[in-house]
Amino acid sequence: MRLSRYYAPTLKESPAEAEVISHKLLLRAGMIRKLTAGIYTYLPLGLRAVNNVARIVREEMDRAGALEILMPAVQPADLWKESGRWDFYGRELLRFVDRHDRESCLGPTHEEVVTDLVRHEIRSYRQLPVNLYQVQTKFRDEIRPRFGLMRGREFVMKDAYSFDKDDAGADASYKSMFDAYARIFTRLGLKFRAVSADSGAIGGSFSHEFMVLAETGEDTIVACPACDYGANLEKAETIAPAPGAAAPCPPAESVPTPGVHTVEEVAAYLGVAPARIVKTLLYMADGTPVAALVRGDRELNEIKLKNLLGATNLRLATPEEVVTLTGAPVGFAGPVGLSSAKIYADQELACGTDWIVGANAADAHLRQVDLARDARVVDFVDLRQVAPGDTCPKCGAALDFTKGIEVGHVFKLGLKYSKALSATFLDEAGKEQFMIMGCYGIGVSRIVAACIEQNNDASGIVFPPPIAPFEAALINLSPKDETASAKADEIYAALTKAGVETLLDDRDERPGVKFKDADLIGLPIQLTLGGKGLARGIVETKDRRTGEKGELPLEGFLEAFMGWREQVRQGWGLE
Amino acid sequence: MRLSRYYAPTLKESPAEAEVISHKLLLRAGMIRKLTAGIYTYLPLGLRAVNNVARIVREEMDRAGALEILMPAVQPADLWKESGRWDFYGRELLRFVDRHDRESCLGPTHEEVVTDLVRHEIRSYRQLPVNLYQVQTKFRDEIRPRFGLMRGREFVMKDAYSFDKDDAGADASYKSMFDAYARIFTRLGLKFRAVSADSGAIGGSFSHEFMVLAETGEDTIVACPACDYGANLEKAETIAPAPGAAAPCPPAESVPTPGVHTVEEVAAYLGVAPARIVKTLLYMADGTPVAALVRGDRELNEIKLKNLLGATNLRLATPEEVVTLTGAPVGFAGPVGLSSAKIYADQELACGTDWIVGANAADAHLRQVDLARDARVVDFVDLRQVAPGDTCPKCGAALDFTKGIEVGHVFKLGLKYSKALSATFLDEAGKEQFMIMGCYGIGVSRIVAACIEQNNDASGIVFPPPIAPFEAALINLSPKDETASAKADEIYAALTKAGVETLLDDRDERPGVKFKDADLIGLPIQLTLGGKGLARGIVETKDRRTGEKGELPLEGFLEAFMGWREQVRQGWGLE
Repeated sequence: MRLSRYYAPTLKESPAEAEVISHKLLLRAGMIRKLTAGIYTYLPLGLRAVNNVARIVREEMDRAGALEILMPAVQPADLWKESGRWDFYGRELLRFVDRHDRESCLGPTHEEVVTDLVRHEIRSYRQLPVNLYQVQTKFRDEIRPRFGLMRGREFVMKDAYSFDKDDAGADASYKSMFDAYARIFTRLGLKFRAVSADSGAIGGSFSHEFMVLAETGEDTIVACPACDYGANLEKAETIAPAPGAAAPCPPAESVPTPGVHTVEEVAAYLGVAPARIVKTLLYMADGTPVAALVRGDRELNEIKLKNLLGATNLRLATPEEVVTLTGAPVGFAGPVGLSSAKIYADQELACGTDWIVGANAADAHLRQVDLARDARVVDFVDLRQVAPGDTCPKCGAALDFTKGIEVGHVFKLGLKYSKALSATFLDEAGKEQFMIMGCYGIGVSRIVAACIEQNNDASGIVFPPPIAPFEAALINLSPKDETASAKADEIYAALTKAGVETLLDDRDERPGVKFKDADLIGLPIQLTLGGKGLARGIVETKDRRTGEKGELPLEGFLEAFMGWREQVRQGWGLE
Repeated sequence: MRLSRYYAPTLKESPAEAEVISHKLLLRAGMIRKLTAGIYTYLPLGLRAVNNVARIVREEMDRAGALEILMPAVQPADLWKESGRWDFYGRELLRFVDRHDRESCLGPTHEEVVTDLVRHEIRSYRQLPVNLYQVQTKFRDEIRPRFGLMRGREFVMKDAYSFDKDDAGADASYKSMFDAYARIFTRLGLKFRAVSADSGAIGGSFSHEFMVLAETGEDTIVACPACDYGANLEKAETIAPAPGAAAPCPPAESVPTPGVHTVEEVAAYLGVAPARIVKTLLYMADGTPVAALVRGDRELNEIKLKNLLGATNLRLATPEEVVTLTGAPVGFAGPVGLSSAKIYADQELACGTDWIVGANAADAHLRQVDLARDARVVDFVDLRQVAPGDTCPKCGAALDFTKGIEVGHVFKLGLKYSKALSATFLDEAGKEQFMIMGCYGIGVSRIVAACIEQNNDASGIVFPPPIAPFEAALINLSPKDETASAKADEIYAALTKAGVETLLDDRDERPGVKFKDADLIGLPIQLTLGGKGLARGIVETKDRRTGEKGELPLEGFLEAFMGWREQVRQGWGLE
């Protein structure tokens, strides 16, 4: 493609609307433009990057035996009522009525539609398994869309849905998708990690997230450097400390703690470490009060508590509720004598005595507390967030904490939707059974943003070759010079013929502008032709990732180029 | 692809919902499924056909220099208000408010969005021309969606928009798109015709429709067999008859016509041919009364009248209005003495005298009327619909009338949107000018339906090779026989390697079921392996279009196959 006839409107300055680096660079490099909040037009370069991702996704889905279909964006409310999500799904589901006053929505996901499809077609175990996928534009009415393609309202997703006749089959489908995802992100040239994840509101048995590693990521990933353990922060397990011989402690006694409420204040006031204090957090789980205890220097993991309780709705108790439950103002809740709420304690608290806890009375705490002795703890379980210093639950090595961006998610759904929508089949014995489902999503447009969050520098984007809109930028420094232009055309034709997608900068612009734009757009390979180099019979090269410059001879250019290109790809870790 | 692992649920019976042949066959062949009124899921076979069309469309758009982008489905109301279409566009525009109560719509077309895009980017004539296109899912809330993919609510379109600095450039862009469309439909293997069309509500200077010829088409195409003239019925011109020496007629006089209202009744009552009678049709054009006269045996073309008047809203006068305007009940309106409405007559009526017209009085007509003499006709112009027997306005040959399905439309828009949205640039002289626009649509998913309307028989679809989901069906008659299956696999692998996309029917089904399904799905090439043929060392062949059967040797199969395949393609008129 010749840049003089292309539509890649680069910008010198970052538009004020852009907060994160990928958003800034996508706008500056002329890849996207905002239409309205969270809704973007993909310009030619941006669309090529999205299509490159989609192509690799499709290839690996096809290879895994999934079949591509295309489901509608507009969905009838009836199906969502049947699954129960019409009421459960929040305002992210954009709802409307059509001209005949039929309630409808713009699909943020397609579990209902695909389950409705197969329940009308599949009658026998002989027709299973089936895995249907699509690459489709989705809509999610985010309350605060931001970060460009990272959290938009309209976006391109690949979503796949598997249907199996039994649990072993469903596990095999899950594994097959997990492996396909790993191949996809490897082929895309991204540094990523698959981590155990909570299956959250979508329901189901278990799930993994695929995270593109980037310092700017919103998610924290906990990963073991020594084994394959990895989980997102919500899901990461802590290991129970070895049950040491905790010394029995004297009977609990009250100490006055006037006006000190927080762990830090209590620790300072009593002159002890926060790790000696027990935090008592009061929650309402589907309307029932619950107390959760963690060590003063730890954070409670609400997801773990929610899953433990099997609660649909979990929230902190209000200050008024705390007063009612404990008889004391906020800051003095404690487990001793607390009969108004079931008490769950983090497992760490079972391995010690002599704790300091709130006294359920204003301006007082209790010390010398042995929880097993003094409080009615229902269970000691894993309730806290992992923290730096924690060790791997699988192998014991110290865990690493890194940041990541979620770009893929695989779920084993189980029977959630097949039961709700009566998606059944007749098994080998002629008995009606529910299909066992899995669902598998990849944020296709989001990957382009995540890839830029992971790969950029002060000059612009540093595209991995598989995602780059073109593989090579060919800069003609002297487009008005016939010899240079003829040579540029010759190289452009040779590269194109060899399957190297090339963007030829034949614009009548200063070299500085061309170099800046090339760095900004970030194609992995830069070739410069003209000036003294041309006179010497060489093309200048630059590896955008390393910044390393070199030369290739015009004589026998293509062969030399293909060798160097291989090195560039290897530098990216690509086969 | 192996059919045993595919998702192509064929049906023996046509579902009741299907009215037209393409709808029936798309459902029966397992290509689409209805989600809700006018909204379909594309199953694997259907999606492949849509993608085949889209690929050829993209190739030709790219070749013509258009650049692919992707615009959002959800559009803000603000832009539609700016263009004036928020109020003008009817209820086909699906409108809603998002969670922040912002008025939005699901885009049925993208003139506003693309004009908004370029007005922010393009500053100088040096950046023009530009032609941006997309292949995108559109939504049109049809009041009565029907005919499957022919008139759905959600559908796949290619829409392109050109921006030029001057009229000559805009004409060149139009020509370039017209030529690209002709190449597209030729490459798709469809019999089609480009016809002059009315530019209708979308506005603009001139336009052509691309029609796939099919007896079941909703549109009538008027085409000259001798020259390249073609138009849709709305647009087709009639030629003024040679001004013969019309004999002067005696003065007009009233004749009683008690209780006869229609042309046929009057003709029968008076014993004359309908061609001697003049129909006087009363309209309200943007609120102003207008009378339109055509010969009794002709049909008024409302589009011609509307364009003549430059009216936005044209409707027949109500019976009450007719009484007010003529002083007579419906059925007796006439031009003589009619002062309440401007009178326009079809040009044919200038070439004769002695007409019979309504008398503007109950139960009476006038005869011996010379319109030029007796009535205040503003103009004699082309107002009627062409009819069989009419001759070509370009060369005089008798016109053909055929039926077609509109699958593409090219418009020269002119300044309509660039003025409304202030899309300007600085010309060579530094002066601000409006960009001159064109827009160009192709109904990608509709083409699949139109192709089936054109190509089918009693057994099912007869796909042209370029659109067919696979090129060849390879039927293994004995999938349980190891020799046959090994041979089928070998042929399948050889075809796939040679780039012949093949659907291998390896299902454990009776031969009759396989043949029926193969005919129903309609892949252009059928190969059958097994039974006696296999023993004889041959593969049976069938050209789905002609039904012609043959044999190819297993020994040296691929070479023989490629030669026969070339013949099949030539039979389709493909290069």
